[in-house]
Amino acid sequence: MSDQSPHKMPDIQATRDERQVAIDKVGVKGVTYPLTLKTADGGEQPTVATLNMYVSLPHHQKGTHMSRFLEVLNENAHPLTPEMFTTIAHQIREKLDADHAHLEVEFTYFIEKRAPVTGSKGLMDYKVKFMVSANAVEDFVMSVTAPATSLCPCSKEISRYGAHNQRCEIEASVRVQSPMWIEDLVKHLESAASTEVFAVLKRPDEKHVTEAAYDNPKFVEDIVRDLAMGLDEDDNIVWYRINSENYESIHNHNAYAQITRDKRES
Amino acid sequence: MSDQSPHKMPDIQATRDERQVAIDKVGVKGVTYPLTLKTADGGEQPTVATLNMYVSLPHHQKGTHMSRFLEVLNENAHPLTPEMFTTIAHQIREKLDADHAHLEVEFTYFIEKRAPVTGSKGLMDYKVKFMVSANAVEDFVMSVTAPATSLCPCSKEISRYGAHNQRCEIEASVRVQSPMWIEDLVKHLESAASTEVFAVLKRPDEKHVTEAAYDNPKFVEDIVRDLAMGLDEDDNIVWYRINSENYESIHNHNAYAQITRDKRES
Amino acid sequence: MSDQSPHKMPDIQATRDERQVAIDKVGVKGVTYPLTLKTADGGEQPTVATLNMYVSLPHHQKGTHMSRFLEVLNENAHPLTPEMFTTIAHQIREKLDADHAHLEVEFTYFIEKRAPVTGSKGLMDYKVKFMVSANAVEDFVMSVTAPATSLCPCSKEISRYGAHNQRCEIEASVRVQSPMWIEDLVKHLESAASTEVFAVLKRPDEKHVTEAAYDNPKFVEDIVRDLAMGLDEDDNIVWYRINSENYESIHNHNAYAQITRDKRES
Amino acid sequence: MSDQSPHKMPDIQATRDERQVAIDKVGVKGVTYPLTLKTADGGEQPTVATLNMYVSLPHHQKGTHMSRFLEVLNENAHPLTPEMFTTIAHQIREKLDADHAHLEVEFTYFIEKRAPVTGSKGLMDYKVKFMVSANAVEDFVMSVTAPATSLCPCSKEISRYGAHNQRCEIEASVRVQSPMWIEDLVKHLESAASTEVFAVLKRPDEKHVTEAAYDNPKFVEDIVRDLAMGLDEDDNIVWYRINSENYESIHNHNAYAQITRDKRES
Repeated sequence: MSDQSPHKMPDIQATRDERQVAIDKVGVKGVTYPLTLKTADGGEQPTVATLNMYVSLPHHQKGTHMSRFLEVLNENAHPLTPEMFTTIAHQIREKLDADHAHLEVEFTYFIEKRAPVTGSKGLMDYKVKFMVSANAVEDFVMSVTAPATSLCPCSKEISRYGAHNQRCEIEASVRVQSPMWIEDLVKHLESAASTEVFAVLKRPDEKHVTEAAYDNPKFVEDIVRDLAMGLDEDDNIVWYRINSENYESIHNHNAYAQITRDKRES
Repeated sequence: MSDQSPHKMPDIQATRDERQVAIDKVGVKGVTYPLTLKTADGGEQPTVATLNMYVSLPHHQKGTHMSRFLEVLNENAHPLTPEMFTTIAHQIREKLDADHAHLEVEFTYFIEKRAPVTGSKGLMDYKVKFMVSANAVEDFVMSVTAPATSLCPCSKEISRYGAHNQRCEIEASVRVQSPMWIEDLVKHLESAASTEVFAVLKRPDEKHVTEAAYDNPKFVEDIVRDLAMGLDEDDNIVWYRINSENYESIHNHNAYAQITRDKRES
Repeated sequence: MSDQSPHKMPDIQATRDERQVAIDKVGVKGVTYPLTLKTADGGEQPTVATLNMYVSLPHHQKGTHMSRFLEVLNENAHPLTPEMFTTIAHQIREKLDADHAHLEVEFTYFIEKRAPVTGSKGLMDYKVKFMVSANAVEDFVMSVTAPATSLCPCSKEISRYGAHNQRCEIEASVRVQSPMWIEDLVKHLESAASTEVFAVLKRPDEKHVTEAAYDNPKFVEDIVRDLAMGLDEDDNIVWYRINSENYESIHNHNAYAQITRDKRES
Repeated sequence: MSDQSPHKMPDIQATRDERQVAIDKVGVKGVTYPLTLKTADGGEQPTVATLNMYVSLPHHQKGTHMSRFLEVLNENAHPLTPEMFTTIAHQIREKLDADHAHLEVEFTYFIEKRAPVTGSKGLMDYKVKFMVSANAVEDFVMSVTAPATSLCPCSKEISRYGAHNQRCEIEASVRVQSPMWIEDLVKHLESAASTEVFAVLKRPDEKHVTEAAYDNPKFVEDIVRDLAMGLDEDDNIVWYRINSENYESIHNHNAYAQITRDKRES
């Protein structure tokens, strides 16, 4: 099988490129991979992640070696954990001889929640995303999206009874000084809504959340403002981008609001 | 260009297949195409459709000729209208020498609606699907999905004030004796909800729909039952499959109900 | 908090319905939940599933009790495994006093594969779906989708060099006499393609799969026919529905073929 | 119905907010709406668009008036055209008393293309996005995504025959000095691929594109570099962000590359 030796095969990617065009990001997108997370209560949680992995490519190199992204991933998967992401970004940078490496990882994270009155246990699922860069300066952004309930203050005020309410998705991306639990960011998100949502609700719980939402009406503007105030008070957070998308029950379109703040600039 | 004449090129698809395996459906999927519809008020409405087109393939033929699906479509597009779908299915069947041809067409359809109090005009968008078969017996199924509001009767009953409500999507697929306007099926769908939704609502309208929903609470079960009763009374409809999916505002999952009925069997 | 006792709260769902309309399926859709699978090599694999759970509802009952679906799930999650699905369907049927219960579970499943020449390890991800019914007769359908490569026989034959090829997704849903490993159905799926795909390919592997695909050209029709023949020979399989969707590299639409066969009928 | 007069109803949105948190973007998301475009050949093309419309909100105002976004849209829809987008952004800004207004519009655009040898006509569909801002400075970004074919240079070089190829999606977002036809940006995109794709290909055409792709192998890096060089030469373009995503036929993940360049900075 001597003709199949990689050492004797031409390495097209390594040849010189004369076009004088550097590439900001090149790599693999949509890699599905198992991931294991530490939980705030000391346990472990396995999940399934989708990864994008990129490097910068200097103008003189024809191509990057795509298989090495997967090899670095495999070498660090015993099992793969978020604690390895910065290391992986650095290894990718080194192994692909790049100035810059960037990693994006999305996955579902579960937190057990008890119903507010009966205490019935249920599992809530949250969408989480980590964005990690290895460069002259390292960067780490954590993003969590939580479903919740929003109830319209205008509808409540002008109507003799009732108020339109709906599921909303509240997202916060944060840069922090020291590592933050997903659970803690979820608390920020859920406390900004009219009420949080649950997997299991018995009738006394349903009564509770219905009344709690009615007692706490919020526009999409109120949700992002109250979330901003919560994140402003958390000194561990130095930068955030937050948004809420409300799936309006009275329209076929959504209400949306977004705020970005860099505390280091103010 | 004689070597590129199709008449001198081998026709692999037309060769004999010896595996003795007939194929139920083979064709093209995900074709995007302009479509024009007649509206109930006598006008025309252009839209963008996604088409799937299939034929059956007998066991002795190696392959179908995929480009002919597109050619039949192009030949009938001056412009393409739903009135041509049965003709197209027959032409596909003939041109591809098949026993059976099947066409699926999905698109967005707009209907202008006035807000219930102020009369403010807005455009509502509905998802529509046509499924057309040409065979020994012809078949034509029309499916329409309408967004609407559902308000929970249990939540209303047990709570001192308020009631959780949410956007739902109600879908009906029907077989009819004589052609039916999309507008007429939409009326069936929207009248089965707690209240219909609108594109533009001023404050008096918002008050109206909030109170209307509260006055008309419905479980997902109620929605499909009331819709079933409406379709039962419509003698033009001989078969239906209906469902509603409610994007629960107090959960991160949906409530769903489905009923199928063939009036010809009962 | 006596007024919040569920025993004193009205049970709207349990009230009598007078509309005389039975519901085929009612329940919860889009529940996200952790799932653990046994692997063919004796290990365990955790993953994340999306579940739909339905019951039939007799005409005289107003509503089903949605929270009980989640409670049954939670009671059987230590951890949740596919071996529990039939039990769960029966418990749902009993707890909701229904004639019929139906469970649909979708998840990602990983299989380690070695590259064909260098033996480099990589993880392949497959989409799996289980559909389980508890009724007078039980039913269990397993569906697996595998990505693979298809290379066009016509393009190869008529061109002086090259041949268009593309990623395809091949799916098989099966009913079996005795339980079947996902790994075994994947073998059926991948052997029907021009060549299987891999997560990690070094250059000697890339040369191998490129040439292997060129040596084994297949129309979408060939893929489903060869898969049908493989499943025909497997006596454990009594029913199948198979399809392949090829993301044509020379078009912006896909090629698709489908075959359904019930061996018990022939 | 005097109690339903909007003039006598409280305007919650207009009340003073004391939280001192300004909002960057607030508005409506996912509005579906008919859109009409002028075509490069002097005709008109109707399509269906999805719109997001946002304003900034100063810290002292509690909420924006969501229905006004739709009203401005309706007032300018006779029919809605891209030429109105900047006007709409300014009207939104004025009507909602905002410093900043932002409009995002996505839709499908069709271009008739002839097959390269037989000249058979077919309709190609492209995804187009306009992003328009009205502020102290106006901004207008046009983004077009074209499907195309990429063929791997490494696979071709190391294999005795064949080469893996696949559908790719190439996207360019541009800022221009004077208005640019979608058709012209599509030419840039398609000329950067191994070969362009078509809706209808007869056998002589299929032979042509198969050989053309084999004669013009390109990594994802080559596609974005060649596209960058084309856009560099077009003096009308002052800024671009481009990427290509290749749906690798030998993997279950994609290859991706991205370049951003602001000519005004260099």
